[in-house]
Amino acid sequence: MSKYTIGIDFGTLSGRAVLVDVQNGREIADCVMDYPHAVMDEVLAATGEKLPANYALQDPNDYLAVLDRVIPAVIRQSGVAPEDVIGLGVDFTCCTCFPVYADGTPLCFTEQFSGNKHAYVKLWKHHAAQPYADRFNELAKARGEAFLDDFGGKVSSEWMFAKLLELLEEAPEVYHACDYVVEAGDWLNWQLTGKLTRGYLFAAYKTEYRLDSGYPSPDFLAALNPLLRDVADTKLAGDMVYIGDRASSVSAAAAKRWGLCEGTAVATAMPDAHVASPALAQCNNGDMFGILGTSGCFMLIDREYRKVPGICGVVRDGLVPGFYGYEAGLCCFGDHFAWAAQNLMTAEYLKESEERGLAPIKLLIEKASRQAPGAHGLIALNWFNGNRNILVNANLSGAFIGMTLRTKPEDMMRALIEATAFGTRKIIENYREYGVNVNTFVAGGGIARKDPFTMQLYADVLKMDIRIAGSTQIPALAGAIYAAAVAGKEAGGYATLQEAADAMNSLSDLVYHPDPEASAVYDKLYAEYELLHDYFGRGGNDVMMRLREIAAEAK
Amino acid sequence: MSKYTIGIDFGTLSGRAVLVDVQNGREIADCVMDYPHAVMDEVLAATGEKLPANYALQDPNDYLAVLDRVIPAVIRQSGVAPEDVIGLGVDFTCCTCFPVYADGTPLCFTEQFSGNKHAYVKLWKHHAAQPYADRFNELAKARGEAFLDDFGGKVSSEWMFAKLLELLEEAPEVYHACDYVVEAGDWLNWQLTGKLTRGYLFAAYKTEYRLDSGYPSPDFLAALNPLLRDVADTKLAGDMVYIGDRASSVSAAAAKRWGLCEGTAVATAMPDAHVASPALAQCNNGDMFGILGTSGCFMLIDREYRKVPGICGVVRDGLVPGFYGYEAGLCCFGDHFAWAAQNLMTAEYLKESEERGLAPIKLLIEKASRQAPGAHGLIALNWFNGNRNILVNANLSGAFIGMTLRTKPEDMMRALIEATAFGTRKIIENYREYGVNVNTFVAGGGIARKDPFTMQLYADVLKMDIRIAGSTQIPALAGAIYAAAVAGKEAGGYATLQEAADAMNSLSDLVYHPDPEASAVYDKLYAEYELLHDYFGRGGNDVMMRLREIAAEAK
Repeated sequence: MSKYTIGIDFGTLSGRAVLVDVQNGREIADCVMDYPHAVMDEVLAATGEKLPANYALQDPNDYLAVLDRVIPAVIRQSGVAPEDVIGLGVDFTCCTCFPVYADGTPLCFTEQFSGNKHAYVKLWKHHAAQPYADRFNELAKARGEAFLDDFGGKVSSEWMFAKLLELLEEAPEVYHACDYVVEAGDWLNWQLTGKLTRGYLFAAYKTEYRLDSGYPSPDFLAALNPLLRDVADTKLAGDMVYIGDRASSVSAAAAKRWGLCEGTAVATAMPDAHVASPALAQCNNGDMFGILGTSGCFMLIDREYRKVPGICGVVRDGLVPGFYGYEAGLCCFGDHFAWAAQNLMTAEYLKESEERGLAPIKLLIEKASRQAPGAHGLIALNWFNGNRNILVNANLSGAFIGMTLRTKPEDMMRALIEATAFGTRKIIENYREYGVNVNTFVAGGGIARKDPFTMQLYADVLKMDIRIAGSTQIPALAGAIYAAAVAGKEAGGYATLQEAADAMNSLSDLVYHPDPEASAVYDKLYAEYELLHDYFGRGGNDVMMRLREIAAEAK
Repeated sequence: MSKYTIGIDFGTLSGRAVLVDVQNGREIADCVMDYPHAVMDEVLAATGEKLPANYALQDPNDYLAVLDRVIPAVIRQSGVAPEDVIGLGVDFTCCTCFPVYADGTPLCFTEQFSGNKHAYVKLWKHHAAQPYADRFNELAKARGEAFLDDFGGKVSSEWMFAKLLELLEEAPEVYHACDYVVEAGDWLNWQLTGKLTRGYLFAAYKTEYRLDSGYPSPDFLAALNPLLRDVADTKLAGDMVYIGDRASSVSAAAAKRWGLCEGTAVATAMPDAHVASPALAQCNNGDMFGILGTSGCFMLIDREYRKVPGICGVVRDGLVPGFYGYEAGLCCFGDHFAWAAQNLMTAEYLKESEERGLAPIKLLIEKASRQAPGAHGLIALNWFNGNRNILVNANLSGAFIGMTLRTKPEDMMRALIEATAFGTRKIIENYREYGVNVNTFVAGGGIARKDPFTMQLYADVLKMDIRIAGSTQIPALAGAIYAAAVAGKEAGGYATLQEAADAMNSLSDLVYHPDPEASAVYDKLYAEYELLHDYFGRGGNDVMMRLREIAAEAK
């Protein structure tokens, strides 16, 4: 009798469930739903309030709406009996956090706080907390806090403590009213199980939780703000659940609401990129995988621990048990291309797009793909949403250099695609410089499967083979693999995570090999990228930061 | 009995005639015609040959077609008898030159050369001769040639000798076959009068002709290329005619072809920006005027001679007799905005543009005008067609710094408009630094009249009052004023140029005053512009030049 698990993947704009056959990882049913409020970055929907610069909020009601839609849908589509669904695994973007009461109710669900922007979900790409991240970094550096070494020397404005400080100091009434501040992934598990747990990877990568020493010390936190001294035991309380472990089981209420069986195993919630390792058969020193969607996350495992400046973090057992998991990434990947397709159009191109039924983004990429490398004469900087690694500065911004009257939209699109590849190469070269191996590269996520031009360009720029994932739903599949492992062998799952991964992983035969001629041109362009990267990003000219200040004053 | 003159203005994309009442400068009739071949910068129309990068060619047949259309049209429209048209004045872009036979026939009109791109008109913005300009500059500098001081230390790839060298070395068969290489303005006068003359201002500003010493010395020219030793007496031969002087008279053939009277006075041909002084009542120390169209030309008069690095040139009696005329400019002005409107569109904006019947360029400027200064967070570099002054490098290119996912087309449009204003401020501050007065600013040209937003922005950035010209056809009106002066008092014109200018000039009452609050923000942005200007333009990072090389290799 076949058994199934459900992986539930919450991305930036939508959530999806995939129902998977435990025996072979085959995806039986799939349902996706866009968040009704998408990302609120201009206006708070509840009040119409104009949001400040760098805000990115969500409404947790949207996540419940996704569960209401997608869980029943995949069960119905597949025709599988709920009893044969033996486990669930949730992944979520992070740090994507919000304040809740002791019973799990988000403060933004209440009349008192529904008009307060700080009561809403602060999405990973909410970047307004940069001043708090700066303060955190200065203090940690001044005090010589050891945990900083694990995060490339700098934490990000995207992470928990910057957002906690922003909440405490800008909306103390919300901070004091809430019982917990939770990662959305943990909150979703709480909805499924009735129990608050903390996913180790959220805590380790985004809240500086160390396996040996826990969260940053109370003394350090108190020096940041006296009211944070006991935050680990209060707003951040909750049992830590490690990678591959069971968080809890489906509650009676959840079983009823979503048509599941009470007691079904639920894996610990995981970050949406980090979750992917077992789905991509990542198990050797120097294996890197990239999840290429809205943003680009690059994960790497190595048996050795190295201090590497400028990365997001390195975490013991942080991707695959027994390895150090290294994280770095581009906080803006596909977002760049969507921006280009939205804003760089000509009347003729729009007409062509309509006539051929080809989306503007595909049309521009098609036109870009017909050029020889370097022919557009442009270099772009891919920091339209700041730089996550290795400069770790959300206040950087993008650039185009080399514009002429002949520059066409597809030239700028191609330059943006190249810039993301150069940014990725910068991350890889930085690892190598500090002694971490990067030997293989597997690409998953929407763009890896749908955009051969970009993947060939990545192979040419990185000068590495790029193997493409077999599934388009790698994070959800990975959630289902973790679910099969925590369900256990008796229930029809697996005894170990490795067994589950061996049976259910998904790699395609599609491999992009570097073209040496193209690589030679990209080497030249990469040298230019590096010069501009350091000039604008490392103190040569802080114009990007000053422009943001001027803009903030103007508004 | 009223008398009339006709000013004929040849711009980058069209030619126009304006028939003017000599008594008061009133424009009685006006006719414009686009050049059928516009600018050939991608393909040579005659053969379909793909043109190399930085080419900009025209077909002189288009200029004759303009005369055929516009002269009869203004006479017909006005109802004026040809006998009452007492003079003509032609102005033309420059250096816009081409090879001709002794009888004035362009080589590109012949079967032998109609397929040769070098036989066509090389428009002022043809920039492919940069390597020849570089060679010219290096040699002149090495030899300490005094004339270089009058041209800011560097001549441009747009000018005659760079283009002559390009012709000689890339198409010797054309060079040797031709009898003359002529400025298009001089060639048009030749068509009207049957006689080749050389307009002093073309020669002085674009062929380094000095009032005291003539063209660069034969020794210098021979060192550049031995075949150039006698070029002043061969390919560049022809009587020099000075500012405000009569070139000749309408020939019998011309009178017949265009419905004029034989013997009608024709003023010396003049550059299309330099011609404007009398139409704008420019007669005091430190008077600057700008002609703002496709490119931006800024002309200035001062009684004193100063060496000023980075300008186009300073010429004795070069704008107004008795003054030194200083020229500098932006080789790309309105071209930037046209580029933006062509390439930076969204589907929604195009729809809005159609629904409101508002051209995309106007729509973007309207949206841009609603922002507070600095709010877009961008700095652009306005070098999409190279930098004419004060960096004098056609291989520079444009840039946008500060891009984010929120950046909209109107933000980029506004940044481009601002960048042209910053480039203008750079020119003005450079004059002041070297002791030349800039006291007043009058703006003419299409954009001055049609775009109040840009003119207010100029006032705010330059921190000067900007007075707007009264006529939309300043160059053509100025041509008509010169024509009235050379016609002479007896024929119904004027005894002197000054008298003609006093009677016929055209200034409006419209003055834009700087807004101190906006100026304060622009001071900050200008400081950023200066940093980037020097970094990219003065050797901090020659990436723009290298990108052009990489692109050239790729193609």
